[in-house]
Amino acid sequence: MQIGFIGIGAMGAGMVRNLLQAGHAVTVWNRTEARAAELVADGAILAKAPAVAAAQELVITMLADDGATEAIALAPSFLQALRPDAIHVCMATISVALAERLTAAHQAAGRAYVSAPVFGRPPAAAAGQLFILAAGPASTLTCLEPVFKVLGQRTFVLGAEPSSANVVKVTGNFMLAAMIETLGEAFALVRKHGIAADQFLEVITNTVFPAPVYKMYGGLVASDTYEPAGFKLRLGLKDVRLAQSAADAAMVPMPLAGLLHDQYMTAIARGYGDFDWAGIARLSAEAAGLPVKETLPFAELP
Amino acid sequence: MQIGFIGIGAMGAGMVRNLLQAGHAVTVWNRTEARAAELVADGAILAKAPAVAAAQELVITMLADDGATEAIALAPSFLQALRPDAIHVCMATISVALAERLTAAHQAAGRAYVSAPVFGRPPAAAAGQLFILAAGPASTLTCLEPVFKVLGQRTFVLGAEPSSANVVKVTGNFMLAAMIETLGEAFALVRKHGIAADQFLEVITNTVFPAPVYKMYGGLVASDTYEPAGFKLRLGLKDVRLAQSAADAAMVPMPLAGLLHDQYMTAIARGYGDFDWAGIARLSAEAAGLPVKETLPFAELP
Amino acid sequence: MQIGFIGIGAMGAGMVRNLLQAGHAVTVWNRTEARAAELVADGAILAKAPAVAAAQELVITMLADDGATEAIALAPSFLQALRPDAIHVCMATISVALAERLTAAHQAAGRAYVSAPVFGRPPAAAAGQLFILAAGPASTLTCLEPVFKVLGQRTFVLGAEPSSANVVKVTGNFMLAAMIETLGEAFALVRKHGIAADQFLEVITNTVFPAPVYKMYGGLVASDTYEPAGFKLRLGLKDVRLAQSAADAAMVPMPLAGLLHDQYMTAIARGYGDFDWAGIARLSAEAAGLPVKETLPFAELP
Amino acid sequence: MQIGFIGIGAMGAGMVRNLLQAGHAVTVWNRTEARAAELVADGAILAKAPAVAAAQELVITMLADDGATEAIALAPSFLQALRPDAIHVCMATISVALAERLTAAHQAAGRAYVSAPVFGRPPAAAAGQLFILAAGPASTLTCLEPVFKVLGQRTFVLGAEPSSANVVKVTGNFMLAAMIETLGEAFALVRKHGIAADQFLEVITNTVFPAPVYKMYGGLVASDTYEPAGFKLRLGLKDVRLAQSAADAAMVPMPLAGLLHDQYMTAIARGYGDFDWAGIARLSAEAAGLPVKETLPFAELP
Repeated sequence: MQIGFIGIGAMGAGMVRNLLQAGHAVTVWNRTEARAAELVADGAILAKAPAVAAAQELVITMLADDGATEAIALAPSFLQALRPDAIHVCMATISVALAERLTAAHQAAGRAYVSAPVFGRPPAAAAGQLFILAAGPASTLTCLEPVFKVLGQRTFVLGAEPSSANVVKVTGNFMLAAMIETLGEAFALVRKHGIAADQFLEVITNTVFPAPVYKMYGGLVASDTYEPAGFKLRLGLKDVRLAQSAADAAMVPMPLAGLLHDQYMTAIARGYGDFDWAGIARLSAEAAGLPVKETLPFAELP
Repeated sequence: MQIGFIGIGAMGAGMVRNLLQAGHAVTVWNRTEARAAELVADGAILAKAPAVAAAQELVITMLADDGATEAIALAPSFLQALRPDAIHVCMATISVALAERLTAAHQAAGRAYVSAPVFGRPPAAAAGQLFILAAGPASTLTCLEPVFKVLGQRTFVLGAEPSSANVVKVTGNFMLAAMIETLGEAFALVRKHGIAADQFLEVITNTVFPAPVYKMYGGLVASDTYEPAGFKLRLGLKDVRLAQSAADAAMVPMPLAGLLHDQYMTAIARGYGDFDWAGIARLSAEAAGLPVKETLPFAELP
Repeated sequence: MQIGFIGIGAMGAGMVRNLLQAGHAVTVWNRTEARAAELVADGAILAKAPAVAAAQELVITMLADDGATEAIALAPSFLQALRPDAIHVCMATISVALAERLTAAHQAAGRAYVSAPVFGRPPAAAAGQLFILAAGPASTLTCLEPVFKVLGQRTFVLGAEPSSANVVKVTGNFMLAAMIETLGEAFALVRKHGIAADQFLEVITNTVFPAPVYKMYGGLVASDTYEPAGFKLRLGLKDVRLAQSAADAAMVPMPLAGLLHDQYMTAIARGYGDFDWAGIARLSAEAAGLPVKETLPFAELP
Repeated sequence: MQIGFIGIGAMGAGMVRNLLQAGHAVTVWNRTEARAAELVADGAILAKAPAVAAAQELVITMLADDGATEAIALAPSFLQALRPDAIHVCMATISVALAERLTAAHQAAGRAYVSAPVFGRPPAAAAGQLFILAAGPASTLTCLEPVFKVLGQRTFVLGAEPSSANVVKVTGNFMLAAMIETLGEAFALVRKHGIAADQFLEVITNTVFPAPVYKMYGGLVASDTYEPAGFKLRLGLKDVRLAQSAADAAMVPMPLAGLLHDQYMTAIARGYGDFDWAGIARLSAEAAGLPVKETLPFAELP
């Protein structure tokens, strides 16, 4: 299949390599061209403009956020470059509202649009082990099956309305953020009572919470280690905001989301924006007066 | 071993049967005698007073809460009934503060005290599959090993200070309550956006949250089914309060615990105190204006 | 002065009458024409289109919210209708972000823009007793002084950047919403302890909180009377959202605003959207299990 | 009247001087004797033990908190020292629960007990301008009228149940704490948007919030000045806890109180416990990334 791939970040690079290895022809474009150029050695074709990548049978966008996605995919040049039978699949974590606008814009232009955000970090993307949440017209989703099989270990079909996939994705990320906040408060409580963090981690992940996410994030919190970031704290704020926007639009009070929002903003003000988002736990430790690895005074923050 | 067992509820009954089956002589006492009497057919000896049960080699208390535990185990008659070489193991979910008072009272009386609260519901108790969190003097814990092996699948030793085990237990229950609140808000969000609850449940428990607790509690929330209760909502409030008391004593701000506290109190005012504690999710559904199985107007509540 | 006045609601009607009485020529436009037409008897000139009202020396907009203001005042026809020396004063409660967009659009069109939101309810508007928060170019504000003197009892000049006035306005409304939530929780607490609401009201407004707003809102809460609404609860949600947007844009965590947001959404789901915004106190009373005047079951809500 | 006065702090000293000046014979006792001794020059009689002060016609206790009050006033020696016709008036800010216990203990001992906490700071105490919230048997309150007239500008009678006065007092302090938190968030928001704090203060206290408490606390927040403390932040935490205890006992969810509790605990962990309780606003400023007067790194905190 001739695939255009727009947005070559930590996730996109691995995904493109898997598509190439599966025999697809992939035309790549990235704002910072160097990142896309690295894939040429693997067989990718370098596009000089988004419209070139958009002029393929299948166009995948995997951009950083709403702003980047909107700038590319709602531009008239992009929509006009899409072939009449093309499918545009947005796999980035974008807002429900933007997914709705993309759906409407493609419908107006007579083009097929699918939302297919994913669960999984860069290593899962590189290994083709993502979980794909896909929503869009049924026949279009059927066409995409072989591609999704290359990129992920399992695809969940969430109906004909593309934004449904985005609702599930942002809700899932909200749940992760809530779990991390829970860990932060829990570890602060036990540590303040003199219990070693790794001892608590062992108990909790071998009894009620044996899930891998508890082990991974619990490990980061227990060791107070948030650098290098797997997923940056400032992106965590972005995702909490996506959940809040979806909640606000549908009139769903989410007090826990409000709490997370404030914690993430406070953490960024403390200078933790580039920590892994598990670094939100640092706030709980500090608020409890526990020693942490290092703390810059506010005065010295940028 | 000659064991006294005080507090025959849904948990205690299964535990006593396992001890009897393993060949121990168990003298049981319960405030409502009938429940204890049912165990006589299994070989238990019925005590007419707590002091009789307390006069064994090993005394296990498994009472409902702080009030019940304090009334029995801090009574002079109980402490005086303990043999010089007896061990008292409190396996109930009690406060960190009460565990500290029990430790001090036993020390003053020259008797051994161990805190050993558990993770697990009645079926796990009946199956001898509890997780036991034990803390107390090392040599005393060694003596208890064979008994713990009968009652649970694994014992975690949390140091010499008995209350450490209670800190871990109440923190674990806080984490469970936080998880349920997260589920409640998450399901309200997706349902309000037109996504079927069971579809969301399938996605979330097969991707980021494959832990059994998410499947079980997620299933209750997805089906809006909170009766009969596995663990009553009003006991959930009790446990959140235990976490808050431990946090307050150690000066650990836990905003999430505060949020849970208010949700549980509101749910009880709504008449949901006898629901399973997963019923806290009903509040999120209602606050989002979603249809729920049934809702009594406040005016008709008791 | 020749004044165009766009948006004749409960506030605008009184303001226009004061301007007419002070000798100004006022051309009025309203989406629902009937409301504007009522002012003709008082000497107003009825405009058939916003652009007619916009073609005066001074143009005042007093529309319901961001949507209505944006639809009128960012329309090319409006901007083109403004005379080269005209001043557009937006006195509505709009977002900081929209004020910034209005500033930029007027600057691009070479027209003067001022933000001048107000504190005060319809009776204050009718009596010319509003408090006016004005921001914009100093010389422009000087020109407006005589008009502001007709409309309000005092004008506060908040600098050259129009949006500064909106920041102060939305922050003030946040403070009012916070005060009402405080009253709601406080009255629930004392009532549940058997203290009469009016007795508590008397104490509190004669000791630490003698401000008129405490007396007025405290009176509504004490008597559990929220209809007819002076300012509707659903508009309260709008205003809390304005504070949150301003906070989010500037990275200011406001946990109290988050709490208010959820309370207002929950109150609307309960069917209280048309109550006075003091009706948020009903939630606290209900959550405490206190009797309230009437409660519809969720099932019967629209 | 022969009055015993126990607890000579910043409040008590002024109150005793007023009683002496009004012609009463006052026997004073304080844990740190030096403070009581200073009043001898004004005519007070120094008691060497609480029981001596307790053996007067009227006994006023004005101790720091529940712990201090309980240690003195529930001691058998105190109750036995009370004359048969004596009245014990506790004017300190104590918990509702302790007031109930004091009521019961005095009833059991056949002695009269009245709760009469106050609104007002040390200067108001010195000027005899306190507001007194009194509850107890009607005839007893009548006897106390002349004394209350010396100490305060107005007495509010809150019924026959002494603890009712404590409910009103802790609720009032909750409202003050909520107001301060509101100020903190509000000032952070406007400052982050470039508005001068004193300008905002001027607007807000001359429009919607003209109450003196807004001027005073707003002034502290606007100038980021929290030392010396009029009322210490760590006492603010104590009072928030009193409101929460009263709420918990009566099953009243108070999300705002929960938020305040966490803020005060965090502020104390930051090293602000000896600030005026208005210093809670420092947290909002810091969380918004605003410059503050000085900030110690956590590492250097005691």
